[in-house]
Amino acid sequence: MNQALLGERTTAAQLSSAVDAAHAAFLEARTISPATRAKWLDAVAAALEADAGSLIDVACKETHLGSQRLTGELRRTIFQLQLLAEEIRGGEHLDATVDHADPDWGMGPRPDIRRMNVPLGVVGVFGASNFPFAFSVAGGDTASALAAGCAVVHKGHDGHPELAARTAAAVTRGLGDAGAPAGLFTLVTGREAGVALVEHPRVKAIGFTGSTAGGRALMDRAAARPEPIPFFGELGGINAVVVTPSAWAERRDTILAEYAASFTMGMGQFCTKPGLLFVPACADEELQAPLGDALATVRPHPLLTERLAAGFEGSVRSMAERSGVRELIQGSFDATPRPTVLVAEASAALSEPELLRNEMFGPASLVVRYSNDDELQAIVDLLEGQLTTAIHGTADDAVDELVEKLTERSGRVLWNAWPTGVTVSYAQHHGGPYPAASSASTSVGTAAIRRFLRPVAFQGWPQDRLPEPLRDANPWGVPQRVDGNWERPSLGSVQQPVQKVVTA
Amino acid sequence: MNQALLGERTTAAQLSSAVDAAHAAFLEARTISPATRAKWLDAVAAALEADAGSLIDVACKETHLGSQRLTGELRRTIFQLQLLAEEIRGGEHLDATVDHADPDWGMGPRPDIRRMNVPLGVVGVFGASNFPFAFSVAGGDTASALAAGCAVVHKGHDGHPELAARTAAAVTRGLGDAGAPAGLFTLVTGREAGVALVEHPRVKAIGFTGSTAGGRALMDRAAARPEPIPFFGELGGINAVVVTPSAWAERRDTILAEYAASFTMGMGQFCTKPGLLFVPACADEELQAPLGDALATVRPHPLLTERLAAGFEGSVRSMAERSGVRELIQGSFDATPRPTVLVAEASAALSEPELLRNEMFGPASLVVRYSNDDELQAIVDLLEGQLTTAIHGTADDAVDELVEKLTERSGRVLWNAWPTGVTVSYAQHHGGPYPAASSASTSVGTAAIRRFLRPVAFQGWPQDRLPEPLRDANPWGVPQRVDGNWERPSLGSVQQPVQKVVTA
Repeated sequence: MNQALLGERTTAAQLSSAVDAAHAAFLEARTISPATRAKWLDAVAAALEADAGSLIDVACKETHLGSQRLTGELRRTIFQLQLLAEEIRGGEHLDATVDHADPDWGMGPRPDIRRMNVPLGVVGVFGASNFPFAFSVAGGDTASALAAGCAVVHKGHDGHPELAARTAAAVTRGLGDAGAPAGLFTLVTGREAGVALVEHPRVKAIGFTGSTAGGRALMDRAAARPEPIPFFGELGGINAVVVTPSAWAERRDTILAEYAASFTMGMGQFCTKPGLLFVPACADEELQAPLGDALATVRPHPLLTERLAAGFEGSVRSMAERSGVRELIQGSFDATPRPTVLVAEASAALSEPELLRNEMFGPASLVVRYSNDDELQAIVDLLEGQLTTAIHGTADDAVDELVEKLTERSGRVLWNAWPTGVTVSYAQHHGGPYPAASSASTSVGTAAIRRFLRPVAFQGWPQDRLPEPLRDANPWGVPQRVDGNWERPSLGSVQQPVQKVVTA
Repeated sequence: MNQALLGERTTAAQLSSAVDAAHAAFLEARTISPATRAKWLDAVAAALEADAGSLIDVACKETHLGSQRLTGELRRTIFQLQLLAEEIRGGEHLDATVDHADPDWGMGPRPDIRRMNVPLGVVGVFGASNFPFAFSVAGGDTASALAAGCAVVHKGHDGHPELAARTAAAVTRGLGDAGAPAGLFTLVTGREAGVALVEHPRVKAIGFTGSTAGGRALMDRAAARPEPIPFFGELGGINAVVVTPSAWAERRDTILAEYAASFTMGMGQFCTKPGLLFVPACADEELQAPLGDALATVRPHPLLTERLAAGFEGSVRSMAERSGVRELIQGSFDATPRPTVLVAEASAALSEPELLRNEMFGPASLVVRYSNDDELQAIVDLLEGQLTTAIHGTADDAVDELVEKLTERSGRVLWNAWPTGVTVSYAQHHGGPYPAASSASTSVGTAAIRRFLRPVAFQGWPQDRLPEPLRDANPWGVPQRVDGNWERPSLGSVQQPVQKVVTA
């Protein structure tokens, strides 16, 4: 375990050494086979599993999130590593494309040209506080960058320093045991190191999970470098949920109870927390009774950090003071805050769109009442980019226009479901138009690997000098698109590749 | 034909109207089938083909490039539209991914979640002067944005205003004849409109081909917007070519003759012009004789614009004045400039890396002589991002390390071939690390469509409300990745889909 980093701040000089070591490890490892790289990811997963008990103990102490939630999150984190390992074993991420020479090609003779994805180099990753496993040291950004073939320098979050160090030790041990080059993964700490990481010339991309304000500041630095680099930021969201009049008439109380459970899950410290609920016009009491009942079952616990608690209180008070906003359910801002529900009319949001554009990170949400479909469409038009949006409706609802509008503004659109809970799978997309995310990419699921790859074409090469995935003999057995047609080796089903669970 | 735009500058107000109209057209067209959209692209191709004779006449007058070259370029431009039409007919670009609900998923029960790509919205495109068809009004950026389902507002290049207007008229006529909504494509002109285009809130991406300096200025504006947007810039390149000692010994004169032909093609006004040739140490005379012979066959013609001619002269004189650089073949800077070859030793580049980092856009190139492999590796280490690099070698050369270094720095790597001539195909990659390009994407080939798409996931939707590509019944017959396994409908071979040629 890297005790040296506990309680200390990485200096700029140490950061530079870490990046140089990561670059050397990247150079050493960049052309190894995906099968070997997959073993490294599996070894990291195994190292986390071996340490599960102590990791969860430390996480409980540092985050207040509770052992049940943290056990599930570690299980998800381990699964994520295993799923990404399985994905690169299949070679899907290489996008191997082979165009043989063709004298009759429509625009004139075509040379032999072949393209595949190669890793970007050293990736800087910024961990989040709210998912101390799944979006932190060994989380999705780290796992997908390693899967892509990159080296990772991870800037640990101050919210869980001991857990970050212990997790980093497990990652390093797993990689070392599996034979990966030293330096392929390093943990650094402190704001100074974070800034230096974004600006280091050998860093070729950034993965970030955090606030829009913090992310934008780093994104601007990444864009202003002499060599700009991509900034893959998952910046948070409001996650508007629309309830149609017919669904409201059919199952109002159920919807409100589910809403209460979703926006208080993890004390509302989810980037997918439903922060807005659009419902048909109704009396306060129609909302208060079922919400009050549901929220009474919530067992409050402390927020992740004191700074976050202060920010939560400030954002809720600021929203409550806006014209047209009132408290519907009064919460608290003490050590274990009780949830707050605010309410406003759609007309207020139409006068002041900022009502719809400010995240309250913690257990609070805003209900907006619309009086007709025109008003609903108008407030949907005011939404900025969202990680998710949802519609609660019935089979007879005509919502095509609404769905199109939500699709234009969202990374994920749900039907009769709640946004909290983000499965790690092939089809997942966790991102969305700005300010939900800083790019069109996903930070969750197998597609997250693509962020850390870039294509290179090879023209005119003899077979034995081509990278393996581009050879006609296809020695690695990867999917190849040959002269326009995909040829996928029969590898058997990749469905349900990994069923291991954490035994801790 | 849009005569109103000839000789005028689009005002900011006109630009804003054009973007609003484009957005309305995008909304109208965004969910139509790829089959319909493909017909629109084919109709644009047909409209260009119908006007081929007059378009080429105007292009000859405005660009000095000659009818043979321009006829080939128009043929390529028409083919590009047809190939992209065929690509979206197949549905490849949608990346349709279906994960059925799975109660036994390794991290815990998985909901039904499905992902596909959707178009970004209105795309601003900046045309280049050096390919007045293939990288201009109806060029790759426009074609791939339309193929993706976006609307295009194209800022025409001042170098060929009449051609731009005539081409735009053909595009608009083709789209209109095929039933596309009005406003889906518009030409605008002038610097003011270009800046306003990058900053318009309804513009969601920029496609650009041009200089690194001009591109970076617009890229910085795109990044500084309240809502940053992706800037897909193909910014030019130096295109270093390495000749190994064994290839040099075997076929020096042939290599030099091919080099001379490649760097003077189109009067050196190609972003893929080989601007650097690394050769083993030799006497000046060993270079001068074969280069002189080959260059004597070049028939000079005027450069594209006077501004470009002035820039060419300035860049060559500035390079020739650098310490350690000498003229090897003296050219000229008159109305029809004769090619210039400069020479330097690797040691000079090691003292002053800027020797390797300045594009001379026009008929000039720099030969750098290395005395041993260490020196060659050292100057390769100094290369910035390149659109292409190439090695001229023999079967026995051990060049693995060199290939890895070039791959790290290039978008396309060639073996015993020259970078000029960029085929439009499935495997093409025309881009590269900064400053060759501003992103990891390609501006040429079928993969160029991906730039203008973003993924959206749909969770929990009933079949009849899902977009067609994500339904289990797959009514559009697109490739679907289902629970991790690709299922591609048997559509027959897509190889050689389009064999039409321009008859003009």
